[in-house]
Amino acid sequence: MSRFQFTKMQGLGNDFVVLEGPGKPNTEEVIRLCDRRFGVGADGVLVVSPGSPIVMDYWNADGSSAEMCGNGFRCVARYAYDRGWVDSPAFEVDTPVGIRRARVAEDLVEVEIGPALIEGEETIGGAVYRLVDTGNPHAVRMVDDLDSIDLSRVGPLVAGEAGFDAGCNVELVALGQDEVTMRVWERGVGETLACGTGMVAAAAVALDGADGTIRVNVAGGVGRVEIKDKVAWLIGPAEYVFTGVLDQG
Amino acid sequence: MSRFQFTKMQGLGNDFVVLEGPGKPNTEEVIRLCDRRFGVGADGVLVVSPGSPIVMDYWNADGSSAEMCGNGFRCVARYAYDRGWVDSPAFEVDTPVGIRRARVAEDLVEVEIGPALIEGEETIGGAVYRLVDTGNPHAVRMVDDLDSIDLSRVGPLVAGEAGFDAGCNVELVALGQDEVTMRVWERGVGETLACGTGMVAAAAVALDGADGTIRVNVAGGVGRVEIKDKVAWLIGPAEYVFTGVLDQG
Repeated sequence: MSRFQFTKMQGLGNDFVVLEGPGKPNTEEVIRLCDRRFGVGADGVLVVSPGSPIVMDYWNADGSSAEMCGNGFRCVARYAYDRGWVDSPAFEVDTPVGIRRARVAEDLVEVEIGPALIEGEETIGGAVYRLVDTGNPHAVRMVDDLDSIDLSRVGPLVAGEAGFDAGCNVELVALGQDEVTMRVWERGVGETLACGTGMVAAAAVALDGADGTIRVNVAGGVGRVEIKDKVAWLIGPAEYVFTGVLDQG
Repeated sequence: MSRFQFTKMQGLGNDFVVLEGPGKPNTEEVIRLCDRRFGVGADGVLVVSPGSPIVMDYWNADGSSAEMCGNGFRCVARYAYDRGWVDSPAFEVDTPVGIRRARVAEDLVEVEIGPALIEGEETIGGAVYRLVDTGNPHAVRMVDDLDSIDLSRVGPLVAGEAGFDAGCNVELVALGQDEVTMRVWERGVGETLACGTGMVAAAAVALDGADGTIRVNVAGGVGRVEIKDKVAWLIGPAEYVFTGVLDQG
């Protein structure tokens, strides 16, 4: 029997079971932990391991490993800082895509996602999608009315036709004054409350690849993306929800 | 700030935040506790209070109070027994619909739901629905192929037209040899993994109001309904998932 002592955290509505490393759950354990009725329930499992640098591991709810999870990275940074595992609020983390920087403030956590590359565009179903690589692939469509589109139908269609080998996430983005509001459809999940790298992709398209700062409204809350010297940072809350113990028989 | 020490339990996939009474959460706290991303996540909150008899309180995830929750009642009985609050595995519980009996065995918990009254039938959209009162209202339709019906469309239609003032839950039931397999649509929720009183309603229709025992397969597992002297008992597992602490700021 395995005993998991965990912390449940969320960032902009993306929620995570956070475990302390260096031990790692196996696929079956990840699936069980993320099950919203027979387990703790989460979008994914994060393992945070102390060290220099701090190490972040991440698995999706289906047990697969993901390239990067921006909102999870913010939770990892908050956790490591609050545990006293780093000696400064600005520190480095060894993430699934390499070393990235994090800065923890009282209310917000800023994390470095990396470059957001606009790789081209595709016209699908009469609409133009900008293809953006933020470490994982995104198709971003600017729209006037976010609610006029059936994302549950459009998401899988675009993911299949946008030209990325393994599909992509799909973002619908409405441009405002220094802000965007977006809906996101994630591969293998469906529409979600937020997607950190999707927020970066939306900001990159809104800024047309230039440096700048933009507020990003998602269903799970409000974040900010800052692109500086072509490197994107994701800024927003990372919050504790509860702590618990699960015994897996 | 309130601190909630809770136990997460589930019965046939219906899941609950279980608190120890006699203190009770307010509506806002129930909603927060049941939120699957910003809280613990559950179909409802159960408060179990020691005493003679044991007292069970129940709220739905939206903060409303419910007449009866059969799978929740099984969790309450398991919890009270395991805490040593009763001196026999067969005991009484003061539920939202009055005093009901419970029996706790090693793997299964049996709870008395009460009479299941078949009150008539309605033809809606060309299909016959038997109207059953199990303490709450149900419309039960026998079908050959459970998967051939769009329950997300039929559920709200039937709930509105079946003639109950406050709507009802809708069950699709396929009859087998000494068993039924069912899908359930719950008022204000949609399709769920299980519904204890719905399982009783389905069994009552399958047995055509007579006494008997029948196995009931739902998406969340396998239970059994026993109707004896016109009183229905619901039998199935009631399991611990994890324990936790949530601080509400």
